[in-house]
Amino acid sequence: MTEAAVGQDEHSTKGAYVHAGESFDRDTNYIEDRIVRDPATAQLSEGAEAWPVERDRYRLVAARACPWANRTLIVRRLLGLEGVISVGLPGPTHDVRSWNFQLDPEGKDPVLGIERLQEAYFARFPDYPRGITVPAVVDIASGQVVTNNFPQITEDFAKEWTDFHREGAPDLWPTELEDEMREVMRRVYTEVNNGVYRCGFAGSQEAYEAAYDRLWTAMDWLEERLADRRFLMGPHITEADVRLFTTLVRFDPVYHGHFKCSRNKLTEMPNLWAYARDLFTTPGFGDTVDFEQIKQHYYVVHGDINPTRIVPVGPDLQNWLEPHGREALGDAPFGRGTAPGPVRESERVVPDHTPLPQ
Amino acid sequence: MTEAAVGQDEHSTKGAYVHAGESFDRDTNYIEDRIVRDPATAQLSEGAEAWPVERDRYRLVAARACPWANRTLIVRRLLGLEGVISVGLPGPTHDVRSWNFQLDPEGKDPVLGIERLQEAYFARFPDYPRGITVPAVVDIASGQVVTNNFPQITEDFAKEWTDFHREGAPDLWPTELEDEMREVMRRVYTEVNNGVYRCGFAGSQEAYEAAYDRLWTAMDWLEERLADRRFLMGPHITEADVRLFTTLVRFDPVYHGHFKCSRNKLTEMPNLWAYARDLFTTPGFGDTVDFEQIKQHYYVVHGDINPTRIVPVGPDLQNWLEPHGREALGDAPFGRGTAPGPVRESERVVPDHTPLPQ
Repeated sequence: MTEAAVGQDEHSTKGAYVHAGESFDRDTNYIEDRIVRDPATAQLSEGAEAWPVERDRYRLVAARACPWANRTLIVRRLLGLEGVISVGLPGPTHDVRSWNFQLDPEGKDPVLGIERLQEAYFARFPDYPRGITVPAVVDIASGQVVTNNFPQITEDFAKEWTDFHREGAPDLWPTELEDEMREVMRRVYTEVNNGVYRCGFAGSQEAYEAAYDRLWTAMDWLEERLADRRFLMGPHITEADVRLFTTLVRFDPVYHGHFKCSRNKLTEMPNLWAYARDLFTTPGFGDTVDFEQIKQHYYVVHGDINPTRIVPVGPDLQNWLEPHGREALGDAPFGRGTAPGPVRESERVVPDHTPLPQ
Repeated sequence: MTEAAVGQDEHSTKGAYVHAGESFDRDTNYIEDRIVRDPATAQLSEGAEAWPVERDRYRLVAARACPWANRTLIVRRLLGLEGVISVGLPGPTHDVRSWNFQLDPEGKDPVLGIERLQEAYFARFPDYPRGITVPAVVDIASGQVVTNNFPQITEDFAKEWTDFHREGAPDLWPTELEDEMREVMRRVYTEVNNGVYRCGFAGSQEAYEAAYDRLWTAMDWLEERLADRRFLMGPHITEADVRLFTTLVRFDPVYHGHFKCSRNKLTEMPNLWAYARDLFTTPGFGDTVDFEQIKQHYYVVHGDINPTRIVPVGPDLQNWLEPHGREALGDAPFGRGTAPGPVRESERVVPDHTPLPQ
């Protein structure tokens, strides 16, 4: 839910991300509709609606730059939903109004026919007051946003779209681990995924320092947790890894300098760095990452942190392909499942943007 | 010559360091008077005057934050001039008018009796039009700046103040190496010392990328040069090492993130990093470094690069004290000389600011 919008949302209005004297407080109000196997029995938040899973009905709009959207791209790949839910990819930068389809022919999403993601939000709610965020799932026929509730989107991909999963799709939510997973994911979310933003958007030295301490306390906890576990929950990849990965992959290119999360580079945290490389070189992870778009997004959009809007050339990224040596901690990343196949031609990351094993 | 001033100087007027569309171009016009052993025979620039070396006559004004001023603090220590030339230490931050003595009792330099270094410049030239820079040498009796020509100041400390050097002072300008030293120092100056500023103050993506390429070409050259030389010119410390050191010590805390010199951290350049630690733990070098003042200076003063003026807590600095292992390349850092003694009590860096061997 990286966002771009005029609205009541305190950190997007008029492109101001930092508010003097204030801590960063993320607006976590989303459109909480769900897409489910059985709409009649779905558990829903108050006021939310249930939509049926259905092949080719929905379009996932997910900017590569955004860590929250990146999660959905990874899970869609891991579960083999590419042939079932198509994807629209807004470009890396946006203005205060909206993410937009700057990279598509004529600047329009070829399926939705819109220039700005805002249009799909307004098609649903003409007075939509909050941030125009990605990821968003859009009902193609009506052009309306169904949901932008990012943690629920990937959970429903895993649990509600099972009829459409590829053969060999991994179990990203093992029942016996779910309670512990939710605890881990909550801490990862508040302290790390959102913690880096709390550092970067802090409106005072005091708020920044408090955020920095919380972030590094959690990073040290993760470093220790990953000493004897190949992945966050043990020998197999789960949703918890997806959620941590999209922050780690942005750490040195963006959060370290731009958000002042600079106690260490990720490369200086031996277990976390090997873990991140392990995931990066696993099909479904690194092949969704566009480092160039990631850097463009943060450094160009946050003009109140980087007024020159100059985008760093660094860091050197070739080291992402160095051997990680974590196979000794477990040799079945997908559990009883298998790795996803190659990325579709039309969805490949520009090769210059990301060092990937070919 | 880190500066603070209203004037014609393009990168200090009104506190604007970045100029849209422009490359950074340092104003290298200084007050080129010299302090020499024999004023009658001194080689001088046109219009410059010669002043005599004399115990207790001059005060060196040198902010710890500034890399160019830091050079003078190191050379003064190495040569044992502390009892001959006193030192005034402006605080880390300044406004557009001037460096000032914010850390001294009543905000005044206790010897010069001034609040702002500007006063000493104006005492000399009432209409002084350029940047108010440190280091500056001030004639105590008249309160006038004698020179702010930083490369000449350290050269004259070494060559003109020899009668006052301590016993065991190293030869920082060995005659037989001087030609090569000047070549090395010129390249280090244009590509590294000033190169990091060209990255940070670039007014366009294009200017930044050109500066970045030049910087890293030079960093790679230095990395290679230091593979089999303990110091830049061989087995002994020279002025060339002083000049490189003050940039390296600021690299990870400031230039890496704030100036976007982020291909690698210094810690990722094995020879340069071991070399920097070697110097850091040599008496006269690390004991002049105040990491906290360094970060305060850059992050607070350059509001057009860091408008929040929030100062990073990182990076972790304890690794500066890890063994460097470079003794194998030569075991006489001071040549036929010896290390300087302890820092005077009144000139010690706040212990919390810098991890130093006690």
